[in-house]
Amino acid sequence: MNTATRSVATRILGLDPGLRITGFGLIDRLGSQLRYVASGTIRTADGELPGRLRTLLDGVREVIATYSPDQVAVEKVFVNVNPQSTLLLGQARGAVICGAVSCDLEVAEYTALQVKQAVVGYGKAGKEQVQHMVQRLLDLPAAPGPDAADALACAICHAHGGNGLGALAGSGAQRRGGRIILPRGRR
Amino acid sequence: MNTATRSVATRILGLDPGLRITGFGLIDRLGSQLRYVASGTIRTADGELPGRLRTLLDGVREVIATYSPDQVAVEKVFVNVNPQSTLLLGQARGAVICGAVSCDLEVAEYTALQVKQAVVGYGKAGKEQVQHMVQRLLDLPAAPGPDAADALACAICHAHGGNGLGALAGSGAQRRGGRIILPRGRR
Repeated sequence: MNTATRSVATRILGLDPGLRITGFGLIDRLGSQLRYVASGTIRTADGELPGRLRTLLDGVREVIATYSPDQVAVEKVFVNVNPQSTLLLGQARGAVICGAVSCDLEVAEYTALQVKQAVVGYGKAGKEQVQHMVQRLLDLPAAPGPDAADALACAICHAHGGNGLGALAGSGAQRRGGRIILPRGRR
Repeated sequence: MNTATRSVATRILGLDPGLRITGFGLIDRLGSQLRYVASGTIRTADGELPGRLRTLLDGVREVIATYSPDQVAVEKVFVNVNPQSTLLLGQARGAVICGAVSCDLEVAEYTALQVKQAVVGYGKAGKEQVQHMVQRLLDLPAAPGPDAADALACAICHAHGGNGLGALAGSGAQRRGGRIILPRGRR
């Protein structure tokens, strides 16, 4: 870790909650520049719900202890057509948010629409488009997995104040008819 | 607190999760005897969800720090007709369970049907019937509020292994045609 950079950069933890897989992604924001720090997933095994919620709670707390983010952004989850699934997802999200607030961090929330607008410029973008744009915007050698990419996208959304207008700053990309046009060198 | 009794009794914390009001109730089980310890509510003010979840998390942890329960029982929440309400309730329940598991306590879960069967002997019992039977079974001078009563009922359900068969032990009550018949002195 570059301490000089770290001292002025804001480190943002993005979280994409799920009961089975919760994605996390950390970026540093320095002015309009974004720098990738880390990303991954917290996975729970089948079993009783309280134990799985504890895995999520402890997992988020461990990520925070390891990377010391300054701010946290959590994706608002979908309301599933199946009420039981909605309830389970809600409980997972509650555990993930508790992991952050129990570390005295404030949590900002963004809808999937806001997150996709921020990184792809199109609210109905698919998972692969999000992965692709996260790779490009953070200059990664490969696309992150879908859950980590969603978490990084949420962090990017937060870095740009929850809207997509600033998301293109520094990337050289332009928007045309709802699509992102990357400069030749970054396509 | 009677330390001699406490040393052999099992203290059970019952929780009835809700985003606005979470009920809690503590009882000591000594053989087939149940003794009331404490009950009340954790309330959250209107505002951003993460802050409300933190109030629930910290509230449950504070109750545990104050009363040192050995076991925790949480009521399974209703799936609401409104998906957004279901999602909010799920997140509240996630925070409440995290409060318990973060204190290294195992959490048992019971449906409202199981809880009502355990204390009223009738799965579709109303709130007032639950309050009434909790008052009787725990020899309370007055009926607890509805949220605290549901939490105490959940603790009673757990004390009797999640079924209603033992719930009447020691109360002198009998079941007749799905109704609880209390002995004359306790009606």
